[in-house]
Amino acid sequence: MFVPGLIERKRDGGALLADEWRELVAAFQDGQVPDYQMAALLMAVFFRGLTREETAALLDAMVGSGSRLDFSHLGVPVIDKHSTGGVGDKVSLVLAPLAAACGLAVPMMSGRGLGHTGGTLDKLESIPGFRTGLSLDETRAQVERIGVAMIGQTPEIAPVDKRLYAMRDVTATVECVPLIACSIMSKKLAEGLGGLVLDVKQGSGAFITDAERSLELAQTMIRLGEDRGCPTVALLTAMDRPLGRACGNALETEEAIMALRGEGPEDVVEETVALAVEMLAVGTRTQGHRGTGGEREGHGRRRQTAVPANRPAGVDRAALERRVLDALASGKAAEKFQQVIEAQGGNPAVVEDPSLLPQAKEVEVYYAPKGGTILRVEPRIIGRAIIEMGGGRTRADDDVDPTVGFVITARPGQPVHTSEPVASIFARDRAGIDLGRRALDRAIVIGEGKAEALPLVSARVTAQGVEQLA
Amino acid sequence: MFVPGLIERKRDGGALLADEWRELVAAFQDGQVPDYQMAALLMAVFFRGLTREETAALLDAMVGSGSRLDFSHLGVPVIDKHSTGGVGDKVSLVLAPLAAACGLAVPMMSGRGLGHTGGTLDKLESIPGFRTGLSLDETRAQVERIGVAMIGQTPEIAPVDKRLYAMRDVTATVECVPLIACSIMSKKLAEGLGGLVLDVKQGSGAFITDAERSLELAQTMIRLGEDRGCPTVALLTAMDRPLGRACGNALETEEAIMALRGEGPEDVVEETVALAVEMLAVGTRTQGHRGTGGEREGHGRRRQTAVPANRPAGVDRAALERRVLDALASGKAAEKFQQVIEAQGGNPAVVEDPSLLPQAKEVEVYYAPKGGTILRVEPRIIGRAIIEMGGGRTRADDDVDPTVGFVITARPGQPVHTSEPVASIFARDRAGIDLGRRALDRAIVIGEGKAEALPLVSARVTAQGVEQLA
Repeated sequence: MFVPGLIERKRDGGALLADEWRELVAAFQDGQVPDYQMAALLMAVFFRGLTREETAALLDAMVGSGSRLDFSHLGVPVIDKHSTGGVGDKVSLVLAPLAAACGLAVPMMSGRGLGHTGGTLDKLESIPGFRTGLSLDETRAQVERIGVAMIGQTPEIAPVDKRLYAMRDVTATVECVPLIACSIMSKKLAEGLGGLVLDVKQGSGAFITDAERSLELAQTMIRLGEDRGCPTVALLTAMDRPLGRACGNALETEEAIMALRGEGPEDVVEETVALAVEMLAVGTRTQGHRGTGGEREGHGRRRQTAVPANRPAGVDRAALERRVLDALASGKAAEKFQQVIEAQGGNPAVVEDPSLLPQAKEVEVYYAPKGGTILRVEPRIIGRAIIEMGGGRTRADDDVDPTVGFVITARPGQPVHTSEPVASIFARDRAGIDLGRRALDRAIVIGEGKAEALPLVSARVTAQGVEQLA
Repeated sequence: MFVPGLIERKRDGGALLADEWRELVAAFQDGQVPDYQMAALLMAVFFRGLTREETAALLDAMVGSGSRLDFSHLGVPVIDKHSTGGVGDKVSLVLAPLAAACGLAVPMMSGRGLGHTGGTLDKLESIPGFRTGLSLDETRAQVERIGVAMIGQTPEIAPVDKRLYAMRDVTATVECVPLIACSIMSKKLAEGLGGLVLDVKQGSGAFITDAERSLELAQTMIRLGEDRGCPTVALLTAMDRPLGRACGNALETEEAIMALRGEGPEDVVEETVALAVEMLAVGTRTQGHRGTGGEREGHGRRRQTAVPANRPAGVDRAALERRVLDALASGKAAEKFQQVIEAQGGNPAVVEDPSLLPQAKEVEVYYAPKGGTILRVEPRIIGRAIIEMGGGRTRADDDVDPTVGFVITARPGQPVHTSEPVASIFARDRAGIDLGRRALDRAIVIGEGKAEALPLVSARVTAQGVEQLA
């Protein structure tokens, strides 16, 4: 294998063979292919893309670089959700316990803050004592015991993805559909899932702002999942404004707890419920098949046991939604979150009393500088401000201050008067407050006319096609 | 400086500011920017190119990464030549002593074999004892004493170029006009030159086979040189067949010695004389200005002391050519080469008796397999065969066998009879002879019709434009 020749071929628009991807990934894992060759190749992939066959080969090589979980003995559908990332997106904290409370097994593997977006792990770790670094054995045991674990990528799961991802993050090769798809799916397939629901964000705050490309991403992941016996469905959701009101780790955890207690902002609850229904629906498709773990399937071979995803297959979404809403209303979901926190070393009392979460030193109200209509609340500006204020990382080893962030009550389309309070700024010092204020000045756009906002959940994407929901 | 942001901007077709290039190169040199970020950036540059301003800024940063020689006290024009590389191109070995014998100071910094092409350093080192690794101080002293030194890139000269080049070589980012131009010019400008002549190869054996792009490369380098007070001119020369007859290190050194003694192949002599005339002509433009060394000029500031390159400025090329031919005929050039060899630790007797050069173990004549016209002699096949036969490197630390190679007497356009000797193969064993024979079978194309060959020296390129010479 002559690596410069492979890079050159991709650079010039050619394709690498499946064997070449496998050898290359293995050699990269063994340290025989240096980082800089992989970085150059990834940039060439950014420009030239990957064929369907190349994407599948890269994914299989990435999954094969580590271990796979196996929950097939549990006898319940093993389902996870993955979001492509946004600002204020605390859905996972609500959804994982909620889905488990509805009877699914949820081995949820999440990430840290990335680019302008927050990360589920950082949010969970704002709960005093909460440990996201469970081992694979601990994860296995916890899912068996309480039906859900919320962890980071362990060293055994798709280790090559971890290295590739870290490199892509600092070489401007993140925003590439096949690479994103392989990165996400390598981890999810290694979890031993029986089904997967994708939350694909659209709009200015998404990583992929182009609607066509975000649909392409969804379809690429669905194809990769379905081809490997993991029923996969996606919802396209709005990220042209922050989700909910709270942005920032502890603030979002608090808002997630409120949602679990039935007091969450409408959009957070609506989106979480929609995703929970999809998880349950996908679970009904797994039937005899309770997880892909342990069974290493050849690329492209579709499991015969999976029921096709065409809707008439008898999924009663209204009934599933009632189940989900009941799990929220009955307090079962909140209780499940307490179990998770307790199992992972955190203080479960935060669910009863969110004021036990760390609190910002400085808090200030932000008033609308003029009257009019809220035309936009720009998520990227909010996300980047949180990082600058110390609530995210500019380097991988930065400490994160969980307390900083915003609570933005203003929503696009809402009329405001001059000097009406529209947000609060949470910072660790005066400089942070000033940073936050300047960010809000730019992020919250007030003017005349009508706000243009994406529908919260606009479409369901399956292997069969795109179904518009709004 | 946020490096991923810079990579992203270039990736998306934007430009980096001059300050950003300077900071980036400095941080790369200090080890603060890892190789993989630079590799990704270089691949993005491959796809997106560099603006004129960016190319200049990158060049200045690369020159500034090391020391610069200063020969301004010598009182003679300090001129070098650079070739973009070819097969059988032993011109430097003839030209450096020849130009010095004509009164120029020539601090010639050359490279090793690269891709399918040979390298001047490898050819010089076929002379027993010859040392190309002079220090900067030794180089300075030797140029002062005998007017010429023939050395490799020292660690002090454009050290960032050395690292960038090594990386580009293994990441498929070599063939990029602005990067090639910066790499070449960074070393040349650091030599403290008062003028530079470029030998830009064209045709199938050149690194850049596309005529338009090779002209673009010439014009980019000319602009970079002229803008920095280093009068620069290029000749476009033929590399659609090997230059001269000998290909391979010791064989080429022998042919260079023959040329210095007035017995060289016509094309080698003609091209060398043409380049020597340009070096002398460029020298007349430096006037009061005897070198750019020591004076660090701002990017884009043109020295006022340099005379414009418009031809009517009184350059009598015929007179210069007489001076050059006289230096050859009188033996002064050959004597100068002896001085160089002696000064650099080699055995100067090789000039009188080239049989003192290392000799191949196995030699065999190659006969034309059929009659007809020699339509082509493909330089890339020849160059690659020499590497396979042990006369070049497949890895940076490979040893080179100086004895292996070819002497190809057949020229494109020449009629041949079946079984007429057209080449000799020099190898270290029978396997090498077989390799060489198979290469010649493919490289020497015999058929009916007219051979299409590029004119040996087709054009002179200056800052004022392109002047066709053939």
